Amino acid sequence: MIDVVITSYLEEEHVQSIRAVDERLRVLYREDLVPPPRWPGDHVGPPGWRRTPQGDEELLAMLREAEVLYDFPRGQVEDLFRVAPRLRWVQASMAGAGEVAERAGLQDTDVTVTTASGVYSGPLAEFVMMALLQHVKDLERLRRDKAERRWREVHTETLHGKTLCVVGMGNIGRAIATRARPFGMRVAGVKRTVREDDEAWGYADELYETEDLYAALREADYVAVALPGTPETHRLLDAREISAMKPEAYFVNVGRGRVVNEAALVEALEGGHLAGAALDVFEEEPLPEESPLWNLENVIISPHSTDNVPGLTNELQTELFRENLRRYLDGEPLVNELDKKLLY
Amino acid sequence: MIDVVITSYLEEEHVQSIRAVDERLRVLYREDLVPPPRWPGDHVGPPGWRRTPQGDEELLAMLREAEVLYDFPRGQVEDLFRVAPRLRWVQASMAGAGEVAERAGLQDTDVTVTTASGVYSGPLAEFVMMALLQHVKDLERLRRDKAERRWREVHTETLHGKTLCVVGMGNIGRAIATRARPFGMRVAGVKRTVREDDEAWGYADELYETEDLYAALREADYVAVALPGTPETHRLLDAREISAMKPEAYFVNVGRGRVVNEAALVEALEGGHLAGAALDVFEEEPLPEESPLWNLENVIISPHSTDNVPGLTNELQTELFRENLRRYLDGEPLVNELDKKLLY
Repeated sequence: MIDVVITSYLEEEHVQSIRAVDERLRVLYREDLVPPPRWPGDHVGPPGWRRTPQGDEELLAMLREAEVLYDFPRGQVEDLFRVAPRLRWVQASMAGAGEVAERAGLQDTDVTVTTASGVYSGPLAEFVMMALLQHVKDLERLRRDKAERRWREVHTETLHGKTLCVVGMGNIGRAIATRARPFGMRVAGVKRTVREDDEAWGYADELYETEDLYAALREADYVAVALPGTPETHRLLDAREISAMKPEAYFVNVGRGRVVNEAALVEALEGGHLAGAALDVFEEEPLPEESPLWNLENVIISPHSTDNVPGLTNELQTELFRENLRRYLDGEPLVNELDKKLLY
Repeated sequence: MIDVVITSYLEEEHVQSIRAVDERLRVLYREDLVPPPRWPGDHVGPPGWRRTPQGDEELLAMLREAEVLYDFPRGQVEDLFRVAPRLRWVQASMAGAGEVAERAGLQDTDVTVTTASGVYSGPLAEFVMMALLQHVKDLERLRRDKAERRWREVHTETLHGKTLCVVGMGNIGRAIATRARPFGMRVAGVKRTVREDDEAWGYADELYETEDLYAALREADYVAVALPGTPETHRLLDAREISAMKPEAYFVNVGRGRVVNEAALVEALEGGHLAGAALDVFEEEPLPEESPLWNLENVIISPHSTDNVPGLTNELQTELFRENLRRYLDGEPLVNELDKKLLY
């Protein structure tokens, strides 16, 4: 028997369908031992939540036998590989699991980590397209004119023919490109390495390697960042890169806050170099009250939750975990395996 | 020689490229005789604009010889077929040219009218998608939270799996469907008649005939109206149809205002039956100051100008006219020919 422990909240129907994958699995799940979801699909739980001491004991007993985990267990990340000595594989609930895997000390073990990359791509791409469209259609002006009951037939722009630079061509970047291209946008994708037969060619009109990021940004009317938080991507969009963008370019970040030099971004937005920005992620979260971003009229602030979509996500999470369990049992490569060096 | 008279504003480069279509064409264009555009791509001109009496004379002399017109000439619509006795074909600059063709008395002549259907589809579809996305992502809440510097990780919905009912599957409806489907939306199209081999099947998951509009609306989470203004479509969306929509459905109209019973729509929005609406067209335009729509928080008002997109439109207008001139000379059927009975 393979002990599978589910350490963050899933609905009963999803737990059952995980159990049903194979009779060699013993699937353990105790709803009272995982953080209660703040909304359907949440896997973090409320701040301040704790298990009872008794509950901690019981979870530890389960972890001792666990070969497979669904999700990093809250409160047991730093010592995970010590308290779960038989652990072989963690299926994380987050798309970007590099940071938590690093905290757990994954690099010193031979445990496999798979991410939930793809599960949140659609909602993130929706945020990006919303940002682009409300900008190009000048929704803010419509709102102001409406408040004054003012009928003013002015003209707007179109996304058609504009260039969108998508920085990071993983699942999220591809989901953005898939939705942007039917608007007649030209997609310039940026990724770490570009092979001739790269799958990403199916999603972009041009591909640049990260070392050519500067050149890619220079030609963009819109920039959407969908990079994971890794040592390599830290401040990849620094002052120099931000200055490379066209005057009046529009900037969106749905990756990680520390990928961008936020102070340089604020300066570009305040100085009118950039037309605006829509941000779901920030260098520090929650965004500190004193951040100048709160004050900028041309900025949309979303509290790192635009991918919190009830209903959809746990269904997709379960589908992905079930597929990976089947592959695990058959000795096949898992979907979304985390690269231990690159941490994405 | 075939006299072609251009009666609304086009840039010199576009006039030249129309001249270049064929040497059998004599293309007449006098910038001083057409309304000056209010923005690049405008064909209406400022309210109150008039030609000089001398200019009127000169235009009438040109119309007398005209076999082909680019656009209905401002100030000469009602008596067009009298002042232009040799007229065979008018290429209109508007997508919905039924109303102006009717005013010109087209039905009593054998003059062909072609519309600019397709030219404005992209920008209108952008407005629709913007409306859907800002609704599903609750942009209004993000805006309010930002004003209060409030970091609140709530959840949002997704367009994925939702049903969009597109009422009117012409160029605009298809442009909407083309952009909505990559978001994972299910498109239910409504059109006058549905053939088994209907081209519109390429754009929709389901097609309904207009007589089944009620059934189509009942299953929709989002409704986008892209109907032309014709006698047949007048108040097609009446109180009964509006009540058919799901509670919390979201409504968009980019067709014509008189297609909808606006009072019933207001009632549904005020009473909370509908979650919100985005309107680019209204029963009366400009929207009267006393309209309750101005006051409704869940309504986006766009002053019938979301398709005013400079740059793009005159290029597409010219491309279409050039194609139709070639077809005209070769005796082939023209693109976008107006049906004299249906007026679209």
